[in-house]
Amino acid sequence: MKKQVVVGIDIGGTFTKYGLVDKKGNLFLENSIPTDTHDTAEEFVTEFKKHLDTQMASSDYHFEIKGVGVGAPNGNYYTGCIENAPNLKWKGVVRLSEMIEKHLGFPAILTNDANAAALGEMIFGGAKGMKNFVMITLGTGLGSGLVVNGDLVYGHDGFAGELGHVNVIPNGRKCGCGKRGCLEAYVSASGLRRTIFELLASETSDSCFRESCFNDLDPKQVTVAAEAGDPIAVKAFQKTGKLLGRSLADTVAHISPEAIFFFGGLAQAGKWILDPTKKAMEENLLDIFKGKVKLLPSALVGKNIAVLGAAALMWKELE
Amino acid sequence: MKKQVVVGIDIGGTFTKYGLVDKKGNLFLENSIPTDTHDTAEEFVTEFKKHLDTQMASSDYHFEIKGVGVGAPNGNYYTGCIENAPNLKWKGVVRLSEMIEKHLGFPAILTNDANAAALGEMIFGGAKGMKNFVMITLGTGLGSGLVVNGDLVYGHDGFAGELGHVNVIPNGRKCGCGKRGCLEAYVSASGLRRTIFELLASETSDSCFRESCFNDLDPKQVTVAAEAGDPIAVKAFQKTGKLLGRSLADTVAHISPEAIFFFGGLAQAGKWILDPTKKAMEENLLDIFKGKVKLLPSALVGKNIAVLGAAALMWKELE
Repeated sequence: MKKQVVVGIDIGGTFTKYGLVDKKGNLFLENSIPTDTHDTAEEFVTEFKKHLDTQMASSDYHFEIKGVGVGAPNGNYYTGCIENAPNLKWKGVVRLSEMIEKHLGFPAILTNDANAAALGEMIFGGAKGMKNFVMITLGTGLGSGLVVNGDLVYGHDGFAGELGHVNVIPNGRKCGCGKRGCLEAYVSASGLRRTIFELLASETSDSCFRESCFNDLDPKQVTVAAEAGDPIAVKAFQKTGKLLGRSLADTVAHISPEAIFFFGGLAQAGKWILDPTKKAMEENLLDIFKGKVKLLPSALVGKNIAVLGAAALMWKELE
Repeated sequence: MKKQVVVGIDIGGTFTKYGLVDKKGNLFLENSIPTDTHDTAEEFVTEFKKHLDTQMASSDYHFEIKGVGVGAPNGNYYTGCIENAPNLKWKGVVRLSEMIEKHLGFPAILTNDANAAALGEMIFGGAKGMKNFVMITLGTGLGSGLVVNGDLVYGHDGFAGELGHVNVIPNGRKCGCGKRGCLEAYVSASGLRRTIFELLASETSDSCFRESCFNDLDPKQVTVAAEAGDPIAVKAFQKTGKLLGRSLADTVAHISPEAIFFFGGLAQAGKWILDPTKKAMEENLLDIFKGKVKLLPSALVGKNIAVLGAAALMWKELE
């Protein structure tokens, strides 16, 4: 018997991860190809098809592909286009769903990577059965997907859920988006790095990071240092969590979710980031919301949540 | 033939307004009774029934009541209860829908007043046909109702849409809710009054408000003064709009609405409040959102939007 699957694709600036996902969330032929070696999206899609065909031919299973789900930066669910993604080589508006349908011959559907992660959590992860929750992806930047009344929030134009760019410090740090004081400029792998360096300048305490270069620092090192009692690392997490928690209190005031999930490198710092976040969120909540909102690590840690989520998007559409 | 109507009720701290609303939004027997003269909600409901019966008996029309919709502070759609409303005499959890069904004999449904206003705008006002929009009510406080994918956002617990209590100034003004720096402490009739008095202290410019008592000041006077060129009044609107606009940019980052509607005393300041709000919102939006979100006065100005909206809630339920 053929295995019915959906192709889940997670397009990143450097690599594109993909896999075949059945209705239960089992992942087959997981693999990746480079994204940035292809000058146009059309070239990328034809190359992707070759890869996939080769892999499927050499598999012991027989797959029946029902469709393709894609998560991509600035992916617009309504239009099926990637629109002006800052960290992709393909500039302007890229009609990706259309290209995939043309070259692969299956129905295709697109959303942004954080929305895909939210769907992955809802269909295959810790948010099963939840109707109102938020997914925060803490990678190089801060992405988010909002679920309200059981559906992803796309908003009027397809771009809702940009919590990385709410203002947390008026006239604060410059953000990659061009604005100042965005949450992402503080709460993300790069934001944490900036906070470490700010503290190295403002404090006199000894720290292992006094031997580090800015560009080499990643959240995992900060967790290791915090575990070892490094005062700069501990303080950096506290500052980061304080801003994240205050900002999440505002998100609760908007949509009152049952839970907020965290995924990504910085999320793996566990209690170091979650404890101060929880504390600051509770302090900033209206009384009616206090003690109600769960902060949870994604249940899909170690799995490719965006590939699963992109596939979930298509499975949801097929229902 | 009998007119099919729904009873719309808008419960405020001092007065309760009501009327009979047909499916097209025509309002009959509009009236009000005091709220705060009744020690218990049960007394209030029985008194309300007497009023309504008397009015209906003396009307030329024959009405067929299909149900009752109520907007009330801290009204919870899921439970039908008013839960710990700070500005009502009835403390704790009041099972209002149940009481109305018992005493009036019609199905009853409840939400908070700002959600009712959002529904009124959607069914009978300027948001007809919109699937994603926000209603901001600018009265003594700042209330809000969010509509996503064509439905009101109630959230997990029924209390979503508390934009008056997002943080705009870390450690800022004390808010009535007990927190500091809430939007409502700056953007509301009382917030504007506080800004005027702050400016009277910080600036040396002449102003008509140097002759005013704090408790006497209302937004209408500030509009009149701004029209006459009063520098304190003009600056107070600019500061108010700047904070409102920056905060609304964060709301756009959450749910990307097609439009944001304004209702209430402060909203009637028109361009004085809307122009600086629009400017600050646009400055704080991500590029992908710029120029897309309409800021509009409610199309139901002069009408009782919360009575209409409460009725709309029941009409929506009956469909």
